[in-house]
Amino acid sequence: MNVSAVREMANDLMDEYAERIDANRLEEWLDLFTEDATYQIIPRENVDRGLPVSIMLCTNKNMLRDRIVSLREANEYNLHYDRHIVGNVRVKEHQGGRWRLEANYAVFQINLEGQARLFAVGRYFDEVRYEGARLLFCKKQAVLDSFSVPTLLATPL
Amino acid sequence: MNVSAVREMANDLMDEYAERIDANRLEEWLDLFTEDATYQIIPRENVDRGLPVSIMLCTNKNMLRDRIVSLREANEYNLHYDRHIVGNVRVKEHQGGRWRLEANYAVFQINLEGQARLFAVGRYFDEVRYEGARLLFCKKQAVLDSFSVPTLLATPL
Amino acid sequence: MNVSAVREMANDLMDEYAERIDANRLEEWLDLFTEDATYQIIPRENVDRGLPVSIMLCTNKNMLRDRIVSLREANEYNLHYDRHIVGNVRVKEHQGGRWRLEANYAVFQINLEGQARLFAVGRYFDEVRYEGARLLFCKKQAVLDSFSVPTLLATPL
Repeated sequence: MNVSAVREMANDLMDEYAERIDANRLEEWLDLFTEDATYQIIPRENVDRGLPVSIMLCTNKNMLRDRIVSLREANEYNLHYDRHIVGNVRVKEHQGGRWRLEANYAVFQINLEGQARLFAVGRYFDEVRYEGARLLFCKKQAVLDSFSVPTLLATPL
Repeated sequence: MNVSAVREMANDLMDEYAERIDANRLEEWLDLFTEDATYQIIPRENVDRGLPVSIMLCTNKNMLRDRIVSLREANEYNLHYDRHIVGNVRVKEHQGGRWRLEANYAVFQINLEGQARLFAVGRYFDEVRYEGARLLFCKKQAVLDSFSVPTLLATPL
Repeated sequence: MNVSAVREMANDLMDEYAERIDANRLEEWLDLFTEDATYQIIPRENVDRGLPVSIMLCTNKNMLRDRIVSLREANEYNLHYDRHIVGNVRVKEHQGGRWRLEANYAVFQINLEGQARLFAVGRYFDEVRYEGARLLFCKKQAVLDSFSVPTLLATPL
């Protein structure tokens, strides 16, 4: 697999990731992860200090599935929209069948009155690998700069 | 035309689209559309409910030209700057000589005192085709999440 | 060097530029410039009026080094985080071994309480060239739309 092809697929994967959250298609969003995938949201402050404390940590896809199920039960109606803007996607390194990806993100939330505000900014530090012809996340780490999130995290970042 | 080449041109077209609006070069912005192009701004709420009501709808390029002319006459002076940030550009599908493009956007407005604020966020659902060597929009649909726009839409999204 | 390869490297350079500022690795950020590089932050208003007055102007890399040194001495502690979101990177033209790059940017600042706000938006007008196998900035011009920056510019844009 040449690097240019991986770049294009990584770019598409990152957009697909964002789009499935933003369109509230969270069950299909799960399809972008491998079964052994880890998903973590961690404040930048903790990363900088070497503290391992996360805002959210799922160490396999079943834990992530549970999150989505409970999210659906807790919130019968979607009380806001999300919109992600993801910057340039980097393909940083290949090792043992995995590629490291990085990209900056900004997430905006839009309430039911149609008012948008900045919700979160940070950087993704991810790992992806091929399963068959598809590129999937085996690690998603969203480092969150704006750890003082005004509403607590309902939807994934 | 191979897909990688289309991706590169689509990326450039999307940036050129944004840059010509942001630089207030709206007459040249028109050059990015085919004569039969449709241009639509539609609130996300309406898309989700299957309602066809648009904020703006032009069903050919002449209607779009008229918009720009009346914009120029109504606003002799540019009362704000726009700045678009467009995320990863997707090339989603090819059919009958057309490619479907999608990308998330955020638009910031800057007033004459140099203060910037978030103006609009959403996703583009576009179609492009070649006319000669150039890639042009034959459909531009800006789905607008933040439909409660504080100032009404003067410049295109 | 074919254009697709330059595009990929330009994309990576632009992200690396942003990441080294955002991670407060400013000494390594300097490594992205040639010795004769110019660095300029200029308000959009002045560009539009043909006024040459800059907010910051360094006409070689030593001046840029001095800025970083004095920044380190003036601010012993980092009082905020930056986060850049850079849009589609354009490779506009090649002449005399240099490529012109352009891209829109938004910079968010996050204070020590973890609250993020929009800080700056604008467009980069850059020139890059190869030194050995690396692509470096020989000109970085950040046109700043939001020239009324609430806190004065400590870190580079």
